[in-house]
Amino acid sequence: MDELFPEVPLVKYEGKGSDNPLAFKRYDPDRKIGDRTMREHLRFSMAFWHSMTGAGRDPFGEPTMRRPWDRTSDPMEVARQRMRGMFELTEKLSIPFFCFHDRDIAPEGASLRESNANLDAIVSLVRDLFKTSPTRLLWGTANLFSHPRYMHGAATSPDPRVFAHAAAQVKKALEVTKELGGQNYVFWGGREGYETLLNTDMKLELENLGRFLHMAVDYAKAIGFDGQFLIEPKPMEPTKHQYDADSAACFAFLQESGLTGSFKLNIETNHATLAGHTMQHELRYARDHGILGSVDANQGDELLGWDTDQFPTNLYNTTLVMYEVLSNGGLGRGGLNFDAKPRRGSWTSTDLAVSHIAGMDAFARGLETAWALISDRALSKRVEARYAGWNAGLGAAIRSGTEGFAGLEKIAMAQAPIDPEPGRQEELEALLNRYI
Amino acid sequence: MDELFPEVPLVKYEGKGSDNPLAFKRYDPDRKIGDRTMREHLRFSMAFWHSMTGAGRDPFGEPTMRRPWDRTSDPMEVARQRMRGMFELTEKLSIPFFCFHDRDIAPEGASLRESNANLDAIVSLVRDLFKTSPTRLLWGTANLFSHPRYMHGAATSPDPRVFAHAAAQVKKALEVTKELGGQNYVFWGGREGYETLLNTDMKLELENLGRFLHMAVDYAKAIGFDGQFLIEPKPMEPTKHQYDADSAACFAFLQESGLTGSFKLNIETNHATLAGHTMQHELRYARDHGILGSVDANQGDELLGWDTDQFPTNLYNTTLVMYEVLSNGGLGRGGLNFDAKPRRGSWTSTDLAVSHIAGMDAFARGLETAWALISDRALSKRVEARYAGWNAGLGAAIRSGTEGFAGLEKIAMAQAPIDPEPGRQEELEALLNRYI
Amino acid sequence: MDELFPEVPLVKYEGKGSDNPLAFKRYDPDRKIGDRTMREHLRFSMAFWHSMTGAGRDPFGEPTMRRPWDRTSDPMEVARQRMRGMFELTEKLSIPFFCFHDRDIAPEGASLRESNANLDAIVSLVRDLFKTSPTRLLWGTANLFSHPRYMHGAATSPDPRVFAHAAAQVKKALEVTKELGGQNYVFWGGREGYETLLNTDMKLELENLGRFLHMAVDYAKAIGFDGQFLIEPKPMEPTKHQYDADSAACFAFLQESGLTGSFKLNIETNHATLAGHTMQHELRYARDHGILGSVDANQGDELLGWDTDQFPTNLYNTTLVMYEVLSNGGLGRGGLNFDAKPRRGSWTSTDLAVSHIAGMDAFARGLETAWALISDRALSKRVEARYAGWNAGLGAAIRSGTEGFAGLEKIAMAQAPIDPEPGRQEELEALLNRYI
Amino acid sequence: MDELFPEVPLVKYEGKGSDNPLAFKRYDPDRKIGDRTMREHLRFSMAFWHSMTGAGRDPFGEPTMRRPWDRTSDPMEVARQRMRGMFELTEKLSIPFFCFHDRDIAPEGASLRESNANLDAIVSLVRDLFKTSPTRLLWGTANLFSHPRYMHGAATSPDPRVFAHAAAQVKKALEVTKELGGQNYVFWGGREGYETLLNTDMKLELENLGRFLHMAVDYAKAIGFDGQFLIEPKPMEPTKHQYDADSAACFAFLQESGLTGSFKLNIETNHATLAGHTMQHELRYARDHGILGSVDANQGDELLGWDTDQFPTNLYNTTLVMYEVLSNGGLGRGGLNFDAKPRRGSWTSTDLAVSHIAGMDAFARGLETAWALISDRALSKRVEARYAGWNAGLGAAIRSGTEGFAGLEKIAMAQAPIDPEPGRQEELEALLNRYI
Repeated sequence: MDELFPEVPLVKYEGKGSDNPLAFKRYDPDRKIGDRTMREHLRFSMAFWHSMTGAGRDPFGEPTMRRPWDRTSDPMEVARQRMRGMFELTEKLSIPFFCFHDRDIAPEGASLRESNANLDAIVSLVRDLFKTSPTRLLWGTANLFSHPRYMHGAATSPDPRVFAHAAAQVKKALEVTKELGGQNYVFWGGREGYETLLNTDMKLELENLGRFLHMAVDYAKAIGFDGQFLIEPKPMEPTKHQYDADSAACFAFLQESGLTGSFKLNIETNHATLAGHTMQHELRYARDHGILGSVDANQGDELLGWDTDQFPTNLYNTTLVMYEVLSNGGLGRGGLNFDAKPRRGSWTSTDLAVSHIAGMDAFARGLETAWALISDRALSKRVEARYAGWNAGLGAAIRSGTEGFAGLEKIAMAQAPIDPEPGRQEELEALLNRYI
Repeated sequence: MDELFPEVPLVKYEGKGSDNPLAFKRYDPDRKIGDRTMREHLRFSMAFWHSMTGAGRDPFGEPTMRRPWDRTSDPMEVARQRMRGMFELTEKLSIPFFCFHDRDIAPEGASLRESNANLDAIVSLVRDLFKTSPTRLLWGTANLFSHPRYMHGAATSPDPRVFAHAAAQVKKALEVTKELGGQNYVFWGGREGYETLLNTDMKLELENLGRFLHMAVDYAKAIGFDGQFLIEPKPMEPTKHQYDADSAACFAFLQESGLTGSFKLNIETNHATLAGHTMQHELRYARDHGILGSVDANQGDELLGWDTDQFPTNLYNTTLVMYEVLSNGGLGRGGLNFDAKPRRGSWTSTDLAVSHIAGMDAFARGLETAWALISDRALSKRVEARYAGWNAGLGAAIRSGTEGFAGLEKIAMAQAPIDPEPGRQEELEALLNRYI
Repeated sequence: MDELFPEVPLVKYEGKGSDNPLAFKRYDPDRKIGDRTMREHLRFSMAFWHSMTGAGRDPFGEPTMRRPWDRTSDPMEVARQRMRGMFELTEKLSIPFFCFHDRDIAPEGASLRESNANLDAIVSLVRDLFKTSPTRLLWGTANLFSHPRYMHGAATSPDPRVFAHAAAQVKKALEVTKELGGQNYVFWGGREGYETLLNTDMKLELENLGRFLHMAVDYAKAIGFDGQFLIEPKPMEPTKHQYDADSAACFAFLQESGLTGSFKLNIETNHATLAGHTMQHELRYARDHGILGSVDANQGDELLGWDTDQFPTNLYNTTLVMYEVLSNGGLGRGGLNFDAKPRRGSWTSTDLAVSHIAGMDAFARGLETAWALISDRALSKRVEARYAGWNAGLGAAIRSGTEGFAGLEKIAMAQAPIDPEPGRQEELEALLNRYI
Repeated sequence: MDELFPEVPLVKYEGKGSDNPLAFKRYDPDRKIGDRTMREHLRFSMAFWHSMTGAGRDPFGEPTMRRPWDRTSDPMEVARQRMRGMFELTEKLSIPFFCFHDRDIAPEGASLRESNANLDAIVSLVRDLFKTSPTRLLWGTANLFSHPRYMHGAATSPDPRVFAHAAAQVKKALEVTKELGGQNYVFWGGREGYETLLNTDMKLELENLGRFLHMAVDYAKAIGFDGQFLIEPKPMEPTKHQYDADSAACFAFLQESGLTGSFKLNIETNHATLAGHTMQHELRYARDHGILGSVDANQGDELLGWDTDQFPTNLYNTTLVMYEVLSNGGLGRGGLNFDAKPRRGSWTSTDLAVSHIAGMDAFARGLETAWALISDRALSKRVEARYAGWNAGLGAAIRSGTEGFAGLEKIAMAQAPIDPEPGRQEELEALLNRYI
């Protein structure tokens, strides 16, 4: 078959010294770090929506991206070309996975039945492409936010007919994800929230969200889909307030709804910072609570208040993400999905490849740095020393539950004034710089 | 006894037409709204720390406030004058409650024993003052954030000795709160968080926080304190990240720690907005989950990134707070605590009184407006209509659990395209304006 | 001609008691406030782009708005219907003005020549409509941000060909604005800024922006256009940084470029808050520097980081805007342009009318409140008293320039310690509430 | 004389491999980069206020820092020890400069005369210390924000007596700065702004600020002080709005007040980000307008809304600062002043030294990276290519002023559709990473 992106070569590792923008300088997929290859550690994924469907539109601007299918008018033919293009690019870029929403890969039809048929046609194409390609499906999801019917929510719509439609759409998306061997299924609730509390019954909406997710779990069991369910937190945009605002809000909801065992989180850097948290915080929170599932690997601009979905090039970010990922023993079925789009002015297909390379090299370097930090126990030995008091004596007694306020008061009365050990943040930041 | 604030008269209700800055224009404590008086609905409280201990210091400026005890050098005599001054002001202002931290009302001594003795002396004075004053204690708490020993946390300190000291301090504060008939006990974790994850074991810290709060619950039972425990969410400041970041983070923590039944939340406007939420959101979230306990009644500046603790004068804020409070059936043992300080340039005692009057009048007007909105069912009838589909037919079937994805798909296949009812936010905002 | 919006009646003033969402409760256009009618004070304008072209698209959602021309496929016929619809709505709503971008009112053609021809055809229609309608043009402008050619800027593009194209487009827009009797011409530089300094020659770009605006001034003179030129500040979105970030940045630029006499500012509430300023600050700054030209009357959500362009319903905002406008002696040729869009869920044409009514009533009330504040000298007499020291004695000497540091040191050495008068912010906020 | 900081050794360059927290890994003061040493390029300065006077207080916490003079009770003896300590530390750390406010180095007395005498005594000590130390004065300034008299402003106070006092204080500070050979004199207007416009005459306040600065310029001439005057922009904190909000606001003010030739800017990273700008933006703006004077070298936390004044360890920040500084041909009389404080939990004197080392190493690495970028013309050759169109043909014609709108329209009509060159932000970010 003809190449769709002839300007993008098979991208190779050329090492640090290379000036070639279409070569890897850091990402060497088969190189081992510990007992896994970089490919296995990083589990990169291409986001179909940004890379194939994204057009460079913004709230004040028309599409800028030029793609091979721009002059094709039949939507299904466009969909087929995009899918072929995605396989071509993931192979050329050594990206082992992709992710999609149902409506990214196949156009919405005039009816749900037609939409499903469109989807089936593309799924069939994907199965064909799987035969000759190593690219696999990291996760699938349903787009429950673009169509006007979802303007007030999908599972949290005030209108039960919308709930039903969303249910049907997720049902199909689950089937398709299973059919394609997807390792996870994601819920991002871009419209599951509210614009104003003046017109909103938040309690009912949250109950309905719980109902919806239970139905998804039940249906997955019914069809034998054993992928991991993931919720993707985001605090706002497009909605004024989204219920899955951050990791903690999701964890509160999962516990309350009895869904803790069935769901993990898909955490995105730009969503974390929109919620006022560092990415490391969100990852750590999820890791500590056993719900770190997957990562949307991008970066935002902390001085801007919307989701810029930039390719991840900040080495502090990639290092600390990988630090948490490695400390978690990897992401299991999850991966690093580039939920990122080239800037609107980076409109060529070459820019699309270069953007992925930029992100992959930055993450490869982050992996190396995090690995070194962990191998040297550079941070962990300091953290362990800082909390050593909890492993014996008073600390152990407190943890064992043998002391209460009365006993602790006696101890406090007897003990000398306390000079806490310094926190040494600056020394640790300098240490981190030594590894970067 | 001589007045400490002779410039502040007994503040009376003079009605809307009054020009007297030292009169109420809206707050008429004995006026009934429904079957409760304004006093009973609003349950105002003075915050001892801001009103009596606060000095007008800011990160770049020295104290400005002039208070009657400024030339008194003995700290215990200062403490006594402040307490008498607070009773004088609450009486003159018809504020039925006050709140305090242990170290606000009595100075830290050279030892814990001395600190406790200082506290006991002031508590004894309060009991005397109770004899002739209607002012009562809304809640007490312990200051676990000012002293250097708490620089890295109290219950979440890396040092078990600090945990023990904090335990002893809360034990005493609980005893004192009980002794003074306090209706609630509050935990605000200003240092329960971290500056950098590079040096932090977040998992252990959160476990220790849970341990600490369980000990508090146990000790309260042991001494027969039956007040309500409250956690006060705040996302940051002084700490980079505070664990009790917002209502959802607290609810996640309470569920995980098995503390749900024992704790409610004390929600503050300025903390809500620092967390990126509206105050109404935080109140609604708490109300929906049965954990709305009390309110810190202030306002922030949404264009500034720190806790400005301004007196609440914005009528949208006071109306929507009272809307949630009334919808909750009131706050029970909770109240509206003015966790607010006069601006640094409002340095006279008259300003202190005028600031409270400004906040009380704004809340009285908020109460009237919210009452009218609720009496007229102005919002609720629209909300009910919007969600009416959930009470019968498809909606009821979904809620009853009789439908799953498979059944809903059939329904979705069969139903006509959906035009959701408009959300009508603008109409509702105009409606709200009609009531203000 | 048939009505396009039969569901929108001629909207009448029905007074505060009215429950009719399609009636004015506060805006009574012919009512006099002082010696001007409300219509004359407020000079409302409809924004063609939001009200006629806006479709309810957002970054994650497809269009939702239903408009009478939705099933018309010929772009020029759509353009004609929109223009007729706008005249119909402005008349029904008693809105005396409208504003437009060239590409809002007529579609971009295959060539500049064709685009101009499209524009001419619609301008001819407007001239016809003027014959029977009181609606007039407040300002015109050119859209230099939507088309991909402007992805890196228009006047500040790295490519001189783009500068030339932008020049041609503004030339035509000026001609058209003149032809339609437009009272102002606006520049909003949505792409005049940068995404990253790594690829940007900011100095050259700013020089080119100055060149461009000088050319506009020269061309206006050449054709006899005597409307007021306006720059509209906005700090970001769509661009990472926009050069006209706020009033002060514009004033710096105008001075440096020698354009001070030729330009004033068009100030928008939501842009002010995105820049971290209150709307009142931006208006005051412009007023104090003699460059307050016009107002984009909307509101944002200070907890969201993008331009939400909501209809202005906050009474504090409308009051303080009108306070500055009245203090400025009105806006001259400027007006209050509703640069606002119904929420995406308010998708009916009725919502469009109701949204304007909500904004107009809120501004009518703001006008009344501000008028009362000014008539009573409620604020001004306090401000004058606060600064009275500058009118005599030491203050007058300083202002007259007769004192320098040496003389002031002598005075400072001799004077007693200073207790500044309190700022009394809380008392003033309570006072403002009494007027609202 | 006895050492005050015996725990801090003379800090030496030990190279990248060193594990010694009290050694430089990157900063090798005498190493040449081009024809200047690192010391000459970087011109580091210690901030007396943070390093010697700063105590670790925060809005919710008492001082934590332990310093050698903690048990000294005489304020003048404390002041002398602090000054000796600063000379000791700057020498041990190879920091060539320091900066101070008048009230940092000598306590405020009971009268202005006494304050001046205190200052003179310390200045005399500094002159003695100069005899044996290489440490010199980068800049001096007056503290016009801490004392209650300045609660409403200094030069912008509503009270002329405060203006006079401020004038006297600056007069003395100028004399002292001159006496100590200070190379610059800084104005940071922490109180030059407002809390609320309800009580503020902004126009008069800005005029008075202009008057004040003119008096300073006049007085400097009178006494022969030929240092550079600098204004330090900051948008807010402690004041709600500060007039010197950002570089653009300062440049607007300087132009309007006729002060452009007399002032440059002292730009701080944390102030830039509080204003919503990147540090590079603020530096570039100042550089492009010829007003880049000096740098306050720190970093903030972009997710926090206050001035955290952290030591600068982010390599992107230090690289891009040095990129602008080198592109400016250095800072002339300016320098890199560590307006930074150890975190409150880094309370030992060792932490103070380690914090400076962390910042110095990060800046040394930033210098090396920026030097390489510039030497290789890695960015500049791309920027020049991007704007090459402005050097000939159409671009040159536009710049020369020979074309106006009419001529450009003809050109635009004739030219083919434009495909702008891609912006290639991602490629440039990857390129930057290759250098870091």
